Amino acid sequence: MADENTVFIGKKNVMSYVLAVVTQFNSGAKEVVIKARGKVISRAVDVAEIVRNRFVNDAKISNVKITTEELTSEDGSKGNVSAIEISLTRP
Amino acid sequence: MADENTVFIGKKNVMSYVLAVVTQFNSGAKEVVIKARGKVISRAVDVAEIVRNRFVNDAKISNVKITTEELTSEDGSKGNVSAIEISLTRP
Repeated sequence: MADENTVFIGKKNVMSYVLAVVTQFNSGAKEVVIKARGKVISRAVDVAEIVRNRFVNDAKISNVKITTEELTSEDGSKGNVSAIEISLTRP
Repeated sequence: MADENTVFIGKKNVMSYVLAVVTQFNSGAKEVVIKARGKVISRAVDVAEIVRNRFVNDAKISNVKITTEELTSEDGSKGNVSAIEISLTRP
């Protein structure tokens, strides 16, 4: 899985990320992985669903992985954050 | 899948839902399904990860399903909302 087929979800609006995923499929990608952590996990799910339902109708959700990542903040304290990886695949 | 093995995520704090899931496992449930929609999807992922990592170490995420649900608001207008179902299973 090359990194150019991964879309990281941040604080931009949902359609920016939808466009990023659709562009990768239109460039010939067979799989695009949408990654997010923390509060923007729900946005990652929105992106996957909008791509699949409105733009790339033959794309399927082939895998959803949820994990915990350890973060170290600037003051050195550690915390955990949940993360999600949604794989969209087209035939 | 009986409804008593389902935990719906809302706006309470994460640990309330963690407790609900752990209680169901302690009552003998082999599978608990965590459901959420919209912005609290990220909280559902937190709940699953905290249960698995801190409380019920033999529980595994057996399935993650993401879907789109149609909502009708009070004024009759319709909108879509993303939803997640996370199945936790223990042997």
